[in-house]
Amino acid sequence: MRPVDETHHPDRRSWVESANREDSGFPVQNLPFCRFERPGLPGRSGIAIGTGIGDSILDLAACAREGFFSGELSSSLLQPTLAGVMALDVPARIALRRRISDLLRESGPDSDRLAAMRDRVLVTREDVRLLLPVEVGDYTDFYASVFHATNVGSMFRPDNPLLPNYKYVPIGYHGRASSLVPDGTPVRRPQGQTAPATEGDPPVRQRSQQLDYELEVGFYVGPGNRLGETISIERAEDHLFGMSLVNDWSARDIQRWEYQPLGPFLAKSFATTVSPWVVTMEALAPFRCQAYSRPQGDPEPLPYLLSDTDRRQGGIDLRLAVFLSSRQMREQGKEPVELSRGTFRDMYWTPAQMLTHHASNGCNLRTGDLIASGTVSNQDRHSRGCLLELTWDGGPGNPLPGNRRTPIVLPTDERRSFLEDGDEVFITGWCEAPGRRRIGLGECRGIILPADA
Amino acid sequence: MRPVDETHHPDRRSWVESANREDSGFPVQNLPFCRFERPGLPGRSGIAIGTGIGDSILDLAACAREGFFSGELSSSLLQPTLAGVMALDVPARIALRRRISDLLRESGPDSDRLAAMRDRVLVTREDVRLLLPVEVGDYTDFYASVFHATNVGSMFRPDNPLLPNYKYVPIGYHGRASSLVPDGTPVRRPQGQTAPATEGDPPVRQRSQQLDYELEVGFYVGPGNRLGETISIERAEDHLFGMSLVNDWSARDIQRWEYQPLGPFLAKSFATTVSPWVVTMEALAPFRCQAYSRPQGDPEPLPYLLSDTDRRQGGIDLRLAVFLSSRQMREQGKEPVELSRGTFRDMYWTPAQMLTHHASNGCNLRTGDLIASGTVSNQDRHSRGCLLELTWDGGPGNPLPGNRRTPIVLPTDERRSFLEDGDEVFITGWCEAPGRRRIGLGECRGIILPADA
Repeated sequence: MRPVDETHHPDRRSWVESANREDSGFPVQNLPFCRFERPGLPGRSGIAIGTGIGDSILDLAACAREGFFSGELSSSLLQPTLAGVMALDVPARIALRRRISDLLRESGPDSDRLAAMRDRVLVTREDVRLLLPVEVGDYTDFYASVFHATNVGSMFRPDNPLLPNYKYVPIGYHGRASSLVPDGTPVRRPQGQTAPATEGDPPVRQRSQQLDYELEVGFYVGPGNRLGETISIERAEDHLFGMSLVNDWSARDIQRWEYQPLGPFLAKSFATTVSPWVVTMEALAPFRCQAYSRPQGDPEPLPYLLSDTDRRQGGIDLRLAVFLSSRQMREQGKEPVELSRGTFRDMYWTPAQMLTHHASNGCNLRTGDLIASGTVSNQDRHSRGCLLELTWDGGPGNPLPGNRRTPIVLPTDERRSFLEDGDEVFITGWCEAPGRRRIGLGECRGIILPADA
Repeated sequence: MRPVDETHHPDRRSWVESANREDSGFPVQNLPFCRFERPGLPGRSGIAIGTGIGDSILDLAACAREGFFSGELSSSLLQPTLAGVMALDVPARIALRRRISDLLRESGPDSDRLAAMRDRVLVTREDVRLLLPVEVGDYTDFYASVFHATNVGSMFRPDNPLLPNYKYVPIGYHGRASSLVPDGTPVRRPQGQTAPATEGDPPVRQRSQQLDYELEVGFYVGPGNRLGETISIERAEDHLFGMSLVNDWSARDIQRWEYQPLGPFLAKSFATTVSPWVVTMEALAPFRCQAYSRPQGDPEPLPYLLSDTDRRQGGIDLRLAVFLSSRQMREQGKEPVELSRGTFRDMYWTPAQMLTHHASNGCNLRTGDLIASGTVSNQDRHSRGCLLELTWDGGPGNPLPGNRRTPIVLPTDERRSFLEDGDEVFITGWCEAPGRRRIGLGECRGIILPADA
């Protein structure tokens, strides 16, 4: 857990005026990182890393060239991805946050000098394209919401919804790194094999009829570990750099047919969208909370997954919401509809537990690896993080008893069991608490394109 | 399928004498690629790519600097990994093979000039360290032997060994790229959660008691495809660059407890060993054979996985063998013992089918991605590609009826159900046919280190 320090002081204001608006998720208390491209400039020369502040981005490479950072920090900021910053150890990372905070706040050291060259170091979001923050070596997806696991299990394995390993093992699987795409990238509906309607018949290859989103968050690995070395739960957060929003698009009909015995494969690997902003663990410090309290009767985690600090402060009080707009809704000028709203604090496993478990066999995590949480669902109906759960497998032709199936009705009277072509899904996330500035995670958007002919 | 051309002519000899020995797997007809480091030279400057020839390696970067290659080929050879060569399109790749063959054969164009500078362009294997050929973006592992799938299924799910999807879906899963290690890297025994002895009790975290190897082969992706685009079965082999041997080390006790519902995770991600030589699809051309003939009653693959060419020549007549030596065997001067011997030709799915399926949802494959076959097992007992199958889950304390369990007896009278510390496993592979020079794939070795205290 990072200390809550003066960089969080709610009275701090920025000389970038848009950061001081009450509703800005990007005040000087946040300082999320991003990687951006200025379309005007050719090749790599136009790519840099930055910090979100209000409606603008501070070009950190430009600042480093102007001498605002020294030594190790400066060279990490001149790289064309966030890998250099992510690789910093915790003291250096904290020093970097303090320095950026000082530069962007009113009356900080050197802040006047920086503000005076704002035309050279500040870019507006409209003028850039936000990219994946880093080249992700490996992408791992966990399954850390017991509510999600129980709901999905009830549909996929009605006789055996929550498997006996769930309460001991932070279940995860390797995802596909190549198909990670940044916010706003359109997602083509995949084709794939789906189960035969009648057992024994051949399966059909078709456009997925059950395309879904999954509301998730992801953590980027900071400093890594060497192959063969483990990471103790006490040190786990030293290896966590920060978090983003993740939409783990899922083709449920493909998944259902392919996933046994080796897990999801083509049902997921057609696209996974990540938000462009990486909100650091330091920025989240004031919003850390107790880890999920297991209900009575649930076993304790094994000792390698337990620490007092993690139990007391391993959770994150992060709010999440998912919105949808159909093509027809946009044509009729209707606002996107909120599909669900949840919180990350009720996850069965903490980020530290996921990371420690991941490395517990000696697996090497590398700087920039992405560790996603799995679908974030809470107990109540409106907090379910995917359509499969919200509509209770409401797709036409599914083999389940229909009585719990509840398609979603849109403001246009359209119905949704799963996603249709032209649907746009976006996820938002934020932290808020009395006496604190709101910390936004930004958005994670994608629109569904029709399958290839 | 690549044409069988003059580069395969069995009368061709090399001016590198060791390549002409009957038993060399690296004659001028093979020309496998590798990436090596000369330990004397600092940093990247000492890393280059090369071609194996007899007991030597032709330093392709040095040859390129001497002007032996032109344009596109030259720049691909100057890169510090095989990515540039793998990205070449098929005509360029064939041109590269022809040129290297001409340079290394007796009386080829420019071969005298090259032979005259042999001290500068040939290195002996002892003088270099062989590395992973390329930085692998994503590693995928298939499950393409129906014999392996049936055997493992019988042990893990006795009531349901071969799932209904198997004969339609080339089953695969995402593996871990970070823990791919080159031939010879010692493998530390992982620790992990294993199932409780009594149902309902908590699991135990311990050193894996059921450490196993898996005999596999892997294919490197040549030119990739863009996200959202598929690859037809007719064009699949254009995207296959070449193959290596793979040992997909597996901790069976960890796997058994963790693998449901999302597949293997920590049971595999502690290490996967790959052989250093990449034997190109062009070198394998004379050994292509009919794809596996499905027994009567098995369904046809769906049309997207079927082509006449693939059916006729999609298989590879590749022989494989696994050897083991225990510490005691080495101390007593005993030769390694052959655990199994098999062939790749009996795989249920061809490399082209695996690749086409992989991209059939629009998943983008990138140059240098590694696609492994899954354990290569054939029908007879001596061709089973892992200890789990060879000893029929012969580990102590396993919950199965013992009558089929058959531990392996080593020449020292030691018994092996699974691997012990100090055991060294190595895999070899080769192609042979009457009237053809033998094409070797080299070796894939690893020795088991004790788990961390």
